[in-house]
Amino acid sequence: MTSSYMNEMQTPQKVLLGPGPSSVHPRVLQAMSMPVMGHLDPAFFQVMDDVCEMLRLVFHTSNKMTVPISSTGTGAMETACTNIIEPGDTVLICRNGYFGIRLGDIAERCGATVHLMDTPWGHPVDPQMLRDEIKKLPALKAVGVVHAETSTGVLSSVKELVEVIHEAGALAIVDAVTSLGGHEVRMDDWGLDVCYSATQKCLGAPPGLAPISLSDAAMDVVAKRKSKVQSFYFNLKDLESYWNQTRAYHHTSPINMTYALREALRMMMEEGIDKRIERHARVAAGLRAGVEALGMDLLAEEGARLNPLTTVSIPEGIEDGKVRRALLNDYDIEIGGGLGEFAGKAWRIGLMGESARERNVFALLSALETLLNKEGYEVAYGASLSAAQKAIATYGE
Amino acid sequence: MTSSYMNEMQTPQKVLLGPGPSSVHPRVLQAMSMPVMGHLDPAFFQVMDDVCEMLRLVFHTSNKMTVPISSTGTGAMETACTNIIEPGDTVLICRNGYFGIRLGDIAERCGATVHLMDTPWGHPVDPQMLRDEIKKLPALKAVGVVHAETSTGVLSSVKELVEVIHEAGALAIVDAVTSLGGHEVRMDDWGLDVCYSATQKCLGAPPGLAPISLSDAAMDVVAKRKSKVQSFYFNLKDLESYWNQTRAYHHTSPINMTYALREALRMMMEEGIDKRIERHARVAAGLRAGVEALGMDLLAEEGARLNPLTTVSIPEGIEDGKVRRALLNDYDIEIGGGLGEFAGKAWRIGLMGESARERNVFALLSALETLLNKEGYEVAYGASLSAAQKAIATYGE
Repeated sequence: MTSSYMNEMQTPQKVLLGPGPSSVHPRVLQAMSMPVMGHLDPAFFQVMDDVCEMLRLVFHTSNKMTVPISSTGTGAMETACTNIIEPGDTVLICRNGYFGIRLGDIAERCGATVHLMDTPWGHPVDPQMLRDEIKKLPALKAVGVVHAETSTGVLSSVKELVEVIHEAGALAIVDAVTSLGGHEVRMDDWGLDVCYSATQKCLGAPPGLAPISLSDAAMDVVAKRKSKVQSFYFNLKDLESYWNQTRAYHHTSPINMTYALREALRMMMEEGIDKRIERHARVAAGLRAGVEALGMDLLAEEGARLNPLTTVSIPEGIEDGKVRRALLNDYDIEIGGGLGEFAGKAWRIGLMGESARERNVFALLSALETLLNKEGYEVAYGASLSAAQKAIATYGE
Repeated sequence: MTSSYMNEMQTPQKVLLGPGPSSVHPRVLQAMSMPVMGHLDPAFFQVMDDVCEMLRLVFHTSNKMTVPISSTGTGAMETACTNIIEPGDTVLICRNGYFGIRLGDIAERCGATVHLMDTPWGHPVDPQMLRDEIKKLPALKAVGVVHAETSTGVLSSVKELVEVIHEAGALAIVDAVTSLGGHEVRMDDWGLDVCYSATQKCLGAPPGLAPISLSDAAMDVVAKRKSKVQSFYFNLKDLESYWNQTRAYHHTSPINMTYALREALRMMMEEGIDKRIERHARVAAGLRAGVEALGMDLLAEEGARLNPLTTVSIPEGIEDGKVRRALLNDYDIEIGGGLGEFAGKAWRIGLMGESARERNVFALLSALETLLNKEGYEVAYGASLSAAQKAIATYGE
C-alpha cells in the first residue's frame, strides 16, 4: 500500500441530497476560510453575539440561552440530556425512529429511569397516546420527542405534544436537528423547554456546530441541579458564562466553524426565515410528486411528511447499494440509505438548506429514471420530471 | 442597540501568540473551504484514512486507534476519561496547573475515586514523588498527567512518569494538547496508553478537532468495560467502527475541519516532524532570551520549559489588561493572560505551529519594549531583539 496523504486532497463536488450534510454555498465556505482569531478576542465576541442573535430569530425565542454547541447534532442531544437529567430522574422518550432510540440511549447513560413510548416507523407521535401513556407513569422530569425524525421522514406535531407534556408538569426536550430552518420551530410560542439542532441540514453550514436553545425555566432547572453535570465539555452553566456573561474561558471555540454559521445564518436572514421554509416545502412537493410518478411509495404517513427529508420505499428487485453507488459515481449525487428498521428498504432523499433547489429535484429524478430503467424497473422517461415540475409550479395554489 | 449581524463579517488578521489557537497557513484555510462531501462518501473515507495515517506518524505509533475526536481538546480529555474510567474506579491525577485540575474534575464526573497529587505551579511533575505517592494509594486503574501544562509553560517528563505508572500496573492517560507537534511525543516507545491533543496549537489547524490515540491494551480495557460509557458522543467503540472498521454511521463528522487537519498534517510531513519540533525550540530560545533581556522572569522552572508556550511574570506596576489590549489593538498581536493561580500575574506567549516563526518573536519583543517603556518600565530599545537574534542564530551550537 502506498501512502496517499502527500497527494493534493481530492474533494469532488457532489450534490448532497442525503440526510445531511447538505451542500454549502460558496459564501459560507469563503467565510469559514477567513483568518483565525482568538476565542477571547473582542472581535470574535462580536461574531458570537451575531450568531446568537440570529439563532434566536430562527428558534423564534427571546430567551437568554441560545448558543451553538461545539459538536455535531448528537453532541447537542447529549448536552440536552446531560444538563437536564440527574441520576435517578424519570423521563419518557417517544420513539418513532432511529433518533428517538438514540435519545433514549443517551438519557439512560445520564442515569435516568427511562420509559419508552414506541410508535411504528413512518408515523408521527400521537398526542393522545402520549397523554394516555403519561397517566400510567410516575412523575416525569422530562419528555423527549423528535420533531423531524431523519430516519423515517416523519414530522410530529411538537406544538400539540408539548401541551401534553406540560399538562403533566414535565419539561419538553425537542430534537429539531432536521427541522430547524426547514420547518417552523417556535421555541417560545410552543413553550419548548430545550430544543437543539445542527448546522449541516437546513441551516446551510458545514457539520461541526449544533445550536441549542433553553427556556429560562429550563436553565433554572440546570442551575438548581443537586449533582454535577456528568459532562464537563457540554456543561451549560460554563457555556453560559462564556457566551453570555463573563466571557470566561471554557474551551477553545471552533472559530472558523462559527464564521461559517454566521454567514449561513446571514444568508437565511437575507432570504427570510419563512421564505426559506416555504422553499423547502415547494421543492419537497416536487420531489414527492416525481417519486410517486415513478411508482415508488413514500414511507412517511401522509400529512406528517417532512419537507427537508423524503423517505422512499426501494422497489422490489432493485439493489439499494448499486443504485446509490451509480448516483454517486456517475451523477455526483448523494442520497442516503435507510437506517435501522429501514436499512436496505428505504432511500432517504434530503432537500435541505442550499441543496433544497428545484434543479436538484430534476437532476435526481432524471438520474433515477435512467438507473431504474437500466435495472429492469420500467418507467416512462420524463414522467417524473413532468409531475415534479407541475407540483412545483402549482405549489400553494 | 442596532443589529450588526447583517454586516459583512469582520475578521481582522491577528498574529496569534497566545495559548492557542495559533495562526493558520492559507493553504490550510483554503483546504477547509473545499466543497462539503458526505460523511459516508468513499472519497471522504480516503481523507479520513490519510488523516489517521499522518496522525500515527506524529504520535509515533502503529496502534489501531488514532483518530480525531469531533470536539476541541477538552472533549478529547473527556473522551479519554469517560472511556477508560468506570464508576468506582480509583485514579490518580497529577496536577501542576490548570489543565491537571480540569483532568481531575473530569475524572471525578466519570464516577472515579480521584486521588490528587499537587505540584506547585511552574514545576514539572516529579517521577520519584509520583512513585512515593502511588505506594500510599490503593490499586489504581489509571494515572493522568499533563505533558505540556499550558497554564504554566511547564513540560513534564512523560517518559519517566509513564515508567512509574506502569510499575504500579496502571494505565497512563497523557494530555499532549500543547506538546504534540511542538515537542517529541512517542506513544509506542514511551508506552503511553491514552494520549490526546488538539488541532489549534502546534498542529497548525483551526480549533474544532482533537486527535486521540489509544494503545491496543487501552482499547482492550475499553472493550471489556462492565458499564456503558456515560457519553454516547465520545464513545470510542462506536468511533472505532466508523473510523477503522465498518464505517457505520455514528455522528456526522465535521467534514471541512477534517480537510483542514489533513492539509495541516501534510504541511507537517513536508516540513518533517523533527524539523517542526526543532523550529519550535529555536524560536522559543529566541523568545526566552528576549524576555530575559527585558528583565522579566520566566515562570517555568529552568530545564522544564515548554517551547510552544512561554510564561512570563508581569513586572510590578504593569497592568496586565492594558498591555494586552494595546498589543491586540495597536499591533494586531494576541498574547494570553494567566489562568487560575497565574491570573493577572503572568503572560502566556505561544509560538505554536504556523505562529512559531522568528518574525513573530521580533514583532512581539519590539512591541513589548515600546509598551513597557510607555508604562514607565524602562528598557533599552533593541536590547531584547539583539538577545533574541543571537539566541536564534546560535541555537544548537
